[in-house]
Amino acid sequence: MDGGRIVAVGDVSRYAGRRVLDAADRVVMPGFVDAHTHVVFGGTRVQEYAARVAGLEPPPGAPAGILGTTLATRACATPELVEQAGPRILEMLAHGTTTLESKSGYGLDTATELRILEAGRTLAADLPVDIMSTYLGAHAFPPGVEHAAYVDRVVDLIPAIAETGLARFCDVYCDEGYFDLARTRRILEAGIAHGLKPKLHLDAYSHTGAARLAAELGATSVDHLNLTTMGELEALGAAGVVGVYLPCLDFAVAHPAPLDPRRILDAGMELALATDICPGCWTTSMQLAVVMACRHGGLSVPQALRAATYGAARALGCDTVTGSLEPGKRADLIILDVARHEDIAYRIGRNSVTTVVSAGTVVVG
Amino acid sequence: MDGGRIVAVGDVSRYAGRRVLDAADRVVMPGFVDAHTHVVFGGTRVQEYAARVAGLEPPPGAPAGILGTTLATRACATPELVEQAGPRILEMLAHGTTTLESKSGYGLDTATELRILEAGRTLAADLPVDIMSTYLGAHAFPPGVEHAAYVDRVVDLIPAIAETGLARFCDVYCDEGYFDLARTRRILEAGIAHGLKPKLHLDAYSHTGAARLAAELGATSVDHLNLTTMGELEALGAAGVVGVYLPCLDFAVAHPAPLDPRRILDAGMELALATDICPGCWTTSMQLAVVMACRHGGLSVPQALRAATYGAARALGCDTVTGSLEPGKRADLIILDVARHEDIAYRIGRNSVTTVVSAGTVVVG
Repeated sequence: MDGGRIVAVGDVSRYAGRRVLDAADRVVMPGFVDAHTHVVFGGTRVQEYAARVAGLEPPPGAPAGILGTTLATRACATPELVEQAGPRILEMLAHGTTTLESKSGYGLDTATELRILEAGRTLAADLPVDIMSTYLGAHAFPPGVEHAAYVDRVVDLIPAIAETGLARFCDVYCDEGYFDLARTRRILEAGIAHGLKPKLHLDAYSHTGAARLAAELGATSVDHLNLTTMGELEALGAAGVVGVYLPCLDFAVAHPAPLDPRRILDAGMELALATDICPGCWTTSMQLAVVMACRHGGLSVPQALRAATYGAARALGCDTVTGSLEPGKRADLIILDVARHEDIAYRIGRNSVTTVVSAGTVVVG
Repeated sequence: MDGGRIVAVGDVSRYAGRRVLDAADRVVMPGFVDAHTHVVFGGTRVQEYAARVAGLEPPPGAPAGILGTTLATRACATPELVEQAGPRILEMLAHGTTTLESKSGYGLDTATELRILEAGRTLAADLPVDIMSTYLGAHAFPPGVEHAAYVDRVVDLIPAIAETGLARFCDVYCDEGYFDLARTRRILEAGIAHGLKPKLHLDAYSHTGAARLAAELGATSVDHLNLTTMGELEALGAAGVVGVYLPCLDFAVAHPAPLDPRRILDAGMELALATDICPGCWTTSMQLAVVMACRHGGLSVPQALRAATYGAARALGCDTVTGSLEPGKRADLIILDVARHEDIAYRIGRNSVTTVVSAGTVVVG
C-alpha cells in the first residue's frame, strides 16, 4: 500500500515496506462494504423490539416504527445526531466495515432530512470510513401531511440536496402503505434529473411491480426484494441493477417471507449484502450479515463474502474505488483472527476482525 | 463484594469499598451460565459447515460429524486439548460467561474420554471461570465397536470418573441411531449409583419417550427437547427437571423443528439457555443465545436472561452458588455498555460486555 492505495497484491517481496502487518495464519480480505444503512437517527426502539419478540404490543409512549424514530430524530440538533451515530459507525468500523451507505429518512421534513445528511457529512469527515449518502425523504408519509403534498416536498428538496452534494443517491420506499408506483417514478425521475442515482426499497412486504420501473430507470440497486418475482429479477439482472439482501433485517422483523438470495444470483444479478442497521434492526456487524446470509440464505461463503465487499461496492457505484484487493484501489482491508475465510460464517456471534486498514491507515488494531 | 462473595445488593452506601466499579448508565447482571457445552475438542469442522450451509456435501477427507471430531480429538494429547479449548473459554469469558458446563464425548474410548475431562480440570484450574464437567461417553457409537460392547465400556468407566471427581454429571445422547431407552437407562443408573447426576440429550431429532425416564430418575436437566410432547414436558416439570434450550444449535444445524421454548415454561419447567458450543455450532456468546432465544424462540427478554443465568445454574445444580446477584452467592457479575437489559436482545451481533467479575475478581475490563 502506498498513498492510501493498493500498489501490489500477491508476491510483494520486491517492495521495501516501511511497515509490515503480520497476518500469518489469519484471513486478509477487503474491508466490508455495508450497502444499506439508516445509521443516522435519534433515540432507540429497544422497548418496541423487546415487546415484539415476545408477541406483545409496544408500551404506550415508547416510540414505535419509522414515525416513532422520526419524532426522536426531529428532536435532535445536528451535533446530537453526530454524537449518537458516531459510536455506531465506530462499532461498524471495529467489525470491519470501511465503506457504508447512510440514508436520511427519519426526518420526513425539510429541516430534519437536511440535518441527517449534514450529520452524515460531518461523520464522514471525522471518522476513517467512507460514507455514501442517500436521500430517502420518501421513507414514509409523515403524520398530518397530505400524501400528495408530501411527495411535492420530497421532490422540491432534491435540487438543494444535489447542489450541495449532500447525497449521491435518491431512494424511495415503494410498498403498500408507502409510496406507490407513480409517486416512486416521479421522485426517482426528479432525482435523476439532478444527478441523484436511483435506489429502491422494493417489495419488502407487498408485490409492487416497481421492479420494472427500477430496470427502466437503471437503478443502482434494489433492496429487500422479498416478494419480487423471478421474471422481474431477471429483468433487473439484464438491466445491470444490483440486488441488496438484508438478512439481519429479515431476522430482526421475523419476516414472513425472508428473501432467498440465491434467486438474485439465479436471475443473473450482482448480489450485495448489508446490515440495514436502523432502530428496527440494530446490528453493526457485516460478519453477522455473512453468518445469516449463509445459514438462513443458503449462500456459499464465497458468495456471501463477495456480496459483502465487491457486490456491495457495486450497489454503491464505488466498485472502481473499493470492494476488492486490486492494485489501484483504495487500501481498505481487514485482518481477521481466523485461519480460513469460511470461519467468518462458521464462528457465530463473534467479532473476528483484529485489524482495520482504511485508505492505507491502520485505524483499528 | 468481599472474599469472592456478594455481601450486599441495592443500597450499599454503608459499606466502605476498597474499589468502586463505575457502572453508571450500564447494565449490571449476573455472569452468564452456559448450561450445555462441548467446548473441549480437537480440530475444526469449518469445511463441513461451509459445505452444508450451501447445500453441498462436505469435501472428502474433511472431518464430518461427531465421528470426524472424535478422530481429531483422539489425535490430541491433553496439553493440546487445553491449548485448543483455552482460547475458546477465554472468549466465552470475554462475552460474559463465568460458569460453564463442559462435556466429554469426542473421545468415545477410555483414554480420550479421560483426557477430555482432565483437560477440563486443567482449564478450570488455569482460567477464572467455573467449569462443571459432564461425562458423555454415550455421545455416539464409535466406529468398529459393537454397540453392546461400547455401552459396557461407557458403564465400566463410570466408577473411575466418579472416584477421581472428573465429572459431576453423566449424560446420554438418547435419539434414533444413538442410545436407545434401555441403554440410556442402564448408563444413567450406573452414573447415579456412583453419584453422577443424570442429564440427557433428549428428543433432538426423534421422539424417544425418554422424557419419562428422565422424570423418573430425577435428571438435573434435559436438553434439546425439539420433539418432546407437552404431556412429557409437564411430567418433567412436575419432577423438577430443568429444560435446556439451545437456540444457536437450532440455528447452526437449520433444525427442521426448532424448539419453541415457551412450551418449556408452559409446562412449568425451569428454562435454561446454553450456547451448545461444539464443532457443529461454534459460538462462544451467551448474548447471541439470548438474541436468538428472543427472536426465534419468542421469549421475553427477562425470560431469556433468567434462563441464561439462574435457569442455567439450576440446570447445573449450582444455583445456590451463582446465577443471581444475592448476598452470599459467589460474586460473578458482568457490566454491559448498554442502558437497558433489553438491549442485550436488541443490539444484535455485538459483544456488549465490558467488565467481567469472576468470584469477586475483575478478570475482563
